[in-house]
Amino acid sequence: MVFGGKTVAGIKDVAKKAGVGVGTVSRMINDSGYVAEKTKKKILEAMEELDYTPNELARNLYHKRSGIIALLIPEIANPFFSRFVSYVEQELYAFGYKIMLCSTANESNAERDYLNMLKRHIVDGVITGVHSLDIEEYKKMNKPIVALDRYLDENIPVVASNHKEGGRIAAEILVSNGCKKVLHFIGETSVSSPYHERHKAFNLVMKENHVDVISYTLKRNLMEAQYYKDAAKEAFEKNTDFDGIFATDLPAVECMKEAIRRNKRIPEDIKIVAYDGTPVTELMEPELTTIVQPIDKLAKSTVELLMDEINGNKYKGKKVFLDVQGKEGKTAKIVNSY
Amino acid sequence: MVFGGKTVAGIKDVAKKAGVGVGTVSRMINDSGYVAEKTKKKILEAMEELDYTPNELARNLYHKRSGIIALLIPEIANPFFSRFVSYVEQELYAFGYKIMLCSTANESNAERDYLNMLKRHIVDGVITGVHSLDIEEYKKMNKPIVALDRYLDENIPVVASNHKEGGRIAAEILVSNGCKKVLHFIGETSVSSPYHERHKAFNLVMKENHVDVISYTLKRNLMEAQYYKDAAKEAFEKNTDFDGIFATDLPAVECMKEAIRRNKRIPEDIKIVAYDGTPVTELMEPELTTIVQPIDKLAKSTVELLMDEINGNKYKGKKVFLDVQGKEGKTAKIVNSY
Repeated sequence: MVFGGKTVAGIKDVAKKAGVGVGTVSRMINDSGYVAEKTKKKILEAMEELDYTPNELARNLYHKRSGIIALLIPEIANPFFSRFVSYVEQELYAFGYKIMLCSTANESNAERDYLNMLKRHIVDGVITGVHSLDIEEYKKMNKPIVALDRYLDENIPVVASNHKEGGRIAAEILVSNGCKKVLHFIGETSVSSPYHERHKAFNLVMKENHVDVISYTLKRNLMEAQYYKDAAKEAFEKNTDFDGIFATDLPAVECMKEAIRRNKRIPEDIKIVAYDGTPVTELMEPELTTIVQPIDKLAKSTVELLMDEINGNKYKGKKVFLDVQGKEGKTAKIVNSY
Repeated sequence: MVFGGKTVAGIKDVAKKAGVGVGTVSRMINDSGYVAEKTKKKILEAMEELDYTPNELARNLYHKRSGIIALLIPEIANPFFSRFVSYVEQELYAFGYKIMLCSTANESNAERDYLNMLKRHIVDGVITGVHSLDIEEYKKMNKPIVALDRYLDENIPVVASNHKEGGRIAAEILVSNGCKKVLHFIGETSVSSPYHERHKAFNLVMKENHVDVISYTLKRNLMEAQYYKDAAKEAFEKNTDFDGIFATDLPAVECMKEAIRRNKRIPEDIKIVAYDGTPVTELMEPELTTIVQPIDKLAKSTVELLMDEINGNKYKGKKVFLDVQGKEGKTAKIVNSY
């Protein structure tokens, strides 16, 4: 069989040039039986000369594998996810897998479309950092899946940061900096995700320390700067006497800019602790104090679990929580080491 | 043929349930012959009931198409490329294509490995924003290719911003702001790319206006903040009497931070014009004046040319240059409108 354009050499041409049968070439390509070393050398030379590379699609059909992992995320332009994808790609590359990228935030039906497509395609596995659909859709997939920061099903392992620790550390930083009233920007609450633990733990520490918390819920999948800019502006208009802010990187940045525009001194008047620790926190002047999610380790762990599943391992109720770390910038002092 | 796991219904099951022959179902799936509307309805109902979706891999083998476009970029975590990929994905989605992501900066052999892989795989086309290899490797691909901002071969169309205009506009902004001596950070010069026009045009306008230009060449594929931070620091240490800076977004940001650390007033002491116009320029306080590359239009044009090629169009010496735009922030005034 020859595919991929008329000018490409096929297995028959290789066999002819090497002076062996087509079956021998096929056995060698698919590693499906004995071929003498001397013969292998002849075949390799023929392949080289003809610039022949075995057709992956035909091989995949035979082996029922594609070497492709689908990666579902809300939006690649978001700095957390672009970094996560970068690390996942590096990890998968080491295992010989490629990424099919599926961003779902820009089209209302994208998640459903992609899942349907993935049912038809032989992708060897799925990593998902989204879910707005019925969990049933994921269960139907019948493929190895690992979820990032999302609870989907007992049979789908989840990898996440230890958000409980993250929320606690953020709260303790603001408390030890003397804050009495803080703005707390929280993520969409309708999703079943480990990240809610962050908000719970944060609020608990604040309550124990008699710090007032004013919460704002940010909508999902609206990751454009303007949305956060407007949210920051609104929060600053409605509240005047607060002295601390806790939010993920991008809304934290917009809050800091709003504070600077209003001639608030940072950290003297307002302390800010960001969450995620993507490079945008380092781009700022002053640099943001932040709780860093270990994006590299999240990627590594996600890929390892997926490889386990592809190799036949079944997980039940598997959850991996990875340590976060406080990183001092200039928007709040870190007294204890975390 | 049935693939993709033991529990999945096959074409035979669908045919049996619908009470028709396998050939009829196959004709419908592949749109390869007449099937009566009434029969189609019966088949669709059977598919629905059995949760059957035709196996894409088998169909691809038949149609010699995969529905996958490979996208080679240096590094997805770079804000320009994460945005470009986001737009390309949206454009391709509308045409029913998916992206295979190939970042090449993190592994020394990644570009060669990916190109070898792409020769074997039936990807339907390639979009590349990298090239460190022999152009011969791309010529051998024998697949539709479009290049972003890179000259590869006469037969490979190139899409780029009108960098000549971009360089001219940036220079005119700095001149009209009264600059007399500027730092100019330029990209790797060993690559054959339309972006060199930016530097030439910038230098020409500066020469005409008797403005001194001190050039620094930044290395390729080193997109980490620390590298730019060090470069900015070095430039500030070696030069004291400059009053303007021209650089792409990330080094421009690091220059601004270095200036702030040295208590330089912006724009009073130093004017800054950035190039690219990714969202990081808006994240800064003060926001950066920047020349905006039309990343959405670059993506649209790239995808359109690729679709043309997939549909059999051959291009020879095709170059598409898209308008850039000056966008005023607070680091330099824009007197004329561009």
